[in-house]
Amino acid sequence: MIIRYERNGKVKHGWMVEADQKVRVIEGDIYKIQSAKPIMTGLELSLDEIAIKAPSEPSKVVCIGVNYRDHAEEMGIELPKEPLMFLKPSTTVVGPHEPIVYPKLTANLHYEGELAVIIKKEAKRVKAEDADDYILGCTCAIDVTARDLQMSDGQWTRSKSFDTFCPLGPAIAAKLDYQNLRIVTRLNGEVRQDSNTNQMVFTIPQIVEAVSAVMTLLPGDVILTGTPPGVGELKPGDEISVSIEGIGTLSTHVVAED
Amino acid sequence: MIIRYERNGKVKHGWMVEADQKVRVIEGDIYKIQSAKPIMTGLELSLDEIAIKAPSEPSKVVCIGVNYRDHAEEMGIELPKEPLMFLKPSTTVVGPHEPIVYPKLTANLHYEGELAVIIKKEAKRVKAEDADDYILGCTCAIDVTARDLQMSDGQWTRSKSFDTFCPLGPAIAAKLDYQNLRIVTRLNGEVRQDSNTNQMVFTIPQIVEAVSAVMTLLPGDVILTGTPPGVGELKPGDEISVSIEGIGTLSTHVVAED
Repeated sequence: MIIRYERNGKVKHGWMVEADQKVRVIEGDIYKIQSAKPIMTGLELSLDEIAIKAPSEPSKVVCIGVNYRDHAEEMGIELPKEPLMFLKPSTTVVGPHEPIVYPKLTANLHYEGELAVIIKKEAKRVKAEDADDYILGCTCAIDVTARDLQMSDGQWTRSKSFDTFCPLGPAIAAKLDYQNLRIVTRLNGEVRQDSNTNQMVFTIPQIVEAVSAVMTLLPGDVILTGTPPGVGELKPGDEISVSIEGIGTLSTHVVAED
Repeated sequence: MIIRYERNGKVKHGWMVEADQKVRVIEGDIYKIQSAKPIMTGLELSLDEIAIKAPSEPSKVVCIGVNYRDHAEEMGIELPKEPLMFLKPSTTVVGPHEPIVYPKLTANLHYEGELAVIIKKEAKRVKAEDADDYILGCTCAIDVTARDLQMSDGQWTRSKSFDTFCPLGPAIAAKLDYQNLRIVTRLNGEVRQDSNTNQMVFTIPQIVEAVSAVMTLLPGDVILTGTPPGVGELKPGDEISVSIEGIGTLSTHVVAED
């Protein structure tokens, strides 16, 4: 799996095998990798030598709303006939362990655990059957949402655009059977969301086709593919994690705005 | 006024005085300019030696909906109590003379002429009274909108996010009395929108305060400040222009998606 890390002030990509605790430094540009496994420089680092960052620095985060059947029921929203798009700005993205900041402007902050798709190369009007050529891999994400502002604004942008509202990570896994993965969100260790990506209304290839028919996707861009049922409130001090089969666990916590 | 141009494959910033047709090459980073007029290298170019680009390359375009009183009436929408935010991705931005592409996915494309604010430096929780320190200047913009998709989606993102849906330019004017400027949109030479920025519901400093309370604005980021009444349809072949007092005229045209 691919991670992005900082060491001595420099940000690079590394390859990590879940079984061990070593990071192998990747040679060259991960967005130009041709095989499932990138080329390594030969240099190995241990986890305590590095700080893990969000696995990509997207120009944009495109989100698909109401994309799990049972979450639509939970919210009392009709299933969309086409993928329903909204955006989070790049300034929402934080890495694992970087806290979610609870803004003073909301009194009802929610987690939404999601599978994130990382785009590999420029994608414009891509057909669903070709989508895999444009996907670097998948990681875990939280679409943090100020539910009160979402309801009062009507437009969802403000409620989902605060800094730190898109934790991403820990690693990008390629060649997954991404339409059949268990996805579990835990709040302070308790399971709150427990579903499978086979519950998506629109599949990942269908989403890539629909989004790239509107806007050009750039290398590193992120698509959040919707949240399963069980969304709920976050409070300062809470620990929140999203685990996806074959990827790993994104863990973070909530702090109050100072 | 500041323009951004390409010459011999390189993109730089230049200074242009409206009266003459010369571009003076600017020395250094325009986002670090301390005075009203930047430092010049001494090199002068004529307009036929360069290609004018969009005056900034934003990481995001933040838009404020329903921000002219009479446009709200025209659309039958209540005036918002706070600035209503939505986003256009960076991939929507094109320069003057680059065409707006009419997507096959819409049958009702609209122009919305707007004043665009260009952010000078990182802005996070800025107070309205300090907003001018964070503004490099203003330019003209068109918030191109697929009105049919805006209505059917509910969320405005898709309808406003197609590539080429944010023409920007031609130049950035600083030190304007930006809350008292005539703004005129012409379709094939006919006046369709004719208003003044004094009709805004929320002033530019109030908007900078509201947006930067949510998301960090980065140098070059763009805020579109809403459109006056008179929005209407665009068809392939149409010429569309937005003129703002003290800035100049952004002119472009519409082509069908191939």
